Amino acid sequence: MNFQRTIFMFLLVFASNLWASDLIVEKQKFTLDNFKTFNGKLIKQVNVGWEAYGTLNEDKSNVILITHYFTGNSHAAGKYSKQDAMPGYWDSIIGPGKAIDTNKYYVISSDTLVNAGAFDKNVITTGPASINPDTGMPYGLSFPVVTIRDFVNVQKALIESMGITKLHAVVGASMGSMQALEWAVAYPDMVERMVSVIGIGQSDAWLVAGLEKWAAPIKQDPNWNNGDYYQSEGPNTGLMQSLATITQEAMHPAIFNASNPNHKNIMGDALHDIKATFPVVDWLYGAAKARLNTMDANHILYLVRASQLFVAGHNDDLAASLAKVTAKSLFLPASNDLLLFPEMAKKTHEMLGDKSQYEEIKGMWGHLDGLFTVQQKAKTLSDFLEQE
Amino acid sequence: MNFQRTIFMFLLVFASNLWASDLIVEKQKFTLDNFKTFNGKLIKQVNVGWEAYGTLNEDKSNVILITHYFTGNSHAAGKYSKQDAMPGYWDSIIGPGKAIDTNKYYVISSDTLVNAGAFDKNVITTGPASINPDTGMPYGLSFPVVTIRDFVNVQKALIESMGITKLHAVVGASMGSMQALEWAVAYPDMVERMVSVIGIGQSDAWLVAGLEKWAAPIKQDPNWNNGDYYQSEGPNTGLMQSLATITQEAMHPAIFNASNPNHKNIMGDALHDIKATFPVVDWLYGAAKARLNTMDANHILYLVRASQLFVAGHNDDLAASLAKVTAKSLFLPASNDLLLFPEMAKKTHEMLGDKSQYEEIKGMWGHLDGLFTVQQKAKTLSDFLEQE
Repeated sequence: MNFQRTIFMFLLVFASNLWASDLIVEKQKFTLDNFKTFNGKLIKQVNVGWEAYGTLNEDKSNVILITHYFTGNSHAAGKYSKQDAMPGYWDSIIGPGKAIDTNKYYVISSDTLVNAGAFDKNVITTGPASINPDTGMPYGLSFPVVTIRDFVNVQKALIESMGITKLHAVVGASMGSMQALEWAVAYPDMVERMVSVIGIGQSDAWLVAGLEKWAAPIKQDPNWNNGDYYQSEGPNTGLMQSLATITQEAMHPAIFNASNPNHKNIMGDALHDIKATFPVVDWLYGAAKARLNTMDANHILYLVRASQLFVAGHNDDLAASLAKVTAKSLFLPASNDLLLFPEMAKKTHEMLGDKSQYEEIKGMWGHLDGLFTVQQKAKTLSDFLEQE
Repeated sequence: MNFQRTIFMFLLVFASNLWASDLIVEKQKFTLDNFKTFNGKLIKQVNVGWEAYGTLNEDKSNVILITHYFTGNSHAAGKYSKQDAMPGYWDSIIGPGKAIDTNKYYVISSDTLVNAGAFDKNVITTGPASINPDTGMPYGLSFPVVTIRDFVNVQKALIESMGITKLHAVVGASMGSMQALEWAVAYPDMVERMVSVIGIGQSDAWLVAGLEKWAAPIKQDPNWNNGDYYQSEGPNTGLMQSLATITQEAMHPAIFNASNPNHKNIMGDALHDIKATFPVVDWLYGAAKARLNTMDANHILYLVRASQLFVAGHNDDLAASLAKVTAKSLFLPASNDLLLFPEMAKKTHEMLGDKSQYEEIKGMWGHLDGLFTVQQKAKTLSDFLEQE
């Protein structure tokens, strides 16, 4: 029964990728020595993975940067091999002839610092799970707190290493939208267009407290051991709880209930045994458990912190920061988003004034409509990218 | 600063109670021997607290039963003494001349089984924290799983002990709405009117999984010790996390953000120390911490389970169960409720057909509008109660 539900979910995801191209992509590695963080710390060596789709033109003026969401990575489009079951997460809008047309644009997508998938073979990142060159041991909590600005600064170093000085656009979903907007605020001369999908201008008090729910189960796990668990069994119970919470909060009840059509309230075990669980709970936690091996708990804590600290411009004067933006902006929140409410995007859009456009994605996925239903806005997106 | 925010919250709550009457109430105790639970277990002795407001008429036909919400108790109106800072939670609608007029009705409110406030001096309840007469020790997890139907059956025994055989109305908010509807389904001949405030007809898959987030931190706490902690330090970290989550999920971002007007994203500690927390998080957890002494963690687990198991009629055929209802029904969900979405009440209302009325409470509290903004529907409620 769990298996059926999993299949149902995969089919839904798969349906949005029916037009998946044969684009074959390759992970590349970017290394940066002596990276200074926003809070003034030094990281001696930063490694991040990146992918590219399309061809860089001669004057390097056709670059679109894709910035990824909280549990995502740089695999935004294409497949690593023809045998891959699934393409990158935004394959429905990135590729030849698609909304972000790789026949026209050179699309770069990069892994962030402290990427959640620290142990995913297709992720290259630097964070608490990385080896500190000074000690030969994992950083753990000695890794500095990093911000969305730091993610942007690593991306800036990456594109500058390729001689790129202008971005035709920066496009990101969710935590990726934070990076896209931060790019437009921090480096207005480099960013011509900014697309915020299921995004926000800052984390409000509500979101900061809500994100703490993603960190708490990890910190509560005795195996977390203040972040020092790389030589022992990690905080898997806490990490599983955190991932389950993230998944549920990214979904709308409509899709969640549709994914569990056989849910029954009154059934044997749960009625008789306080320690028994419901099949829907087993399903949610099972999906989280299946991802444990690729994820690092400390990295989740650092992503939570970067997201909590986020206010575009990183100086707590959002209006002044947004006034610096010269990029044309497009906001594509999801109407049914219960994690980053569309009102948050709308407020930021309105603060940006005339240079901003706003349209809502209509879907049943909630926050995840930014991944699974985004192709609904393909025309809006391609028109926006062609605007002079 | 935390103090200021607390004051702000209290003022908001207090504002809705400006008309608080001088109604002085007294907690009473009802004892029931050999209570058989819905799942077929025996509890040798059940004690629950109850309060009453108004006067029982001669033919005992003017009784309104109030059923309480998840972290609530039987203190629905009035004060225990003139010195009390706050009256019962629905004092704005229960009292002389109010929507539920104690000049006309005899209003009974009772504590549920497994009440969250097991150690609250104004709560009398029976649950895992109670002494098992067979062993002289707290039940812990040997206490049977109980359901909303069991809460109703204890209330039925209570009113029958007073010779009451008909209820003019049953009125409840949130988990109280589950009890109100369960009354109307299980004992249709006894219930003339049913009012569901911020309520639902059944817990859907989404809610069952969401409620698990309230249980998980307790079960994850090593001090929980499989529910056996009454002779040692209890799972306070888990209980605090659970209460903080409940509080946040019962609030809408609008009121949450308004309660934290000085929230800043970029500030000293959180930017520099991954283990530091934000003031808004300290505020939320501080409020939870202040309630730890009155609450029992196992009781929260049992309330979660009762809520997860809830489907009106307790047989997983909601339509057939609702067809049994003869009571006139009134649904008052809150438009901004993000915990029990108004759509859930609407669906149940529509299944009930002509005998049901539906109006939404408009407010900024979210789920808590059912407690703090309910007086907005005072006229609807009093008209409904007077309907023949």
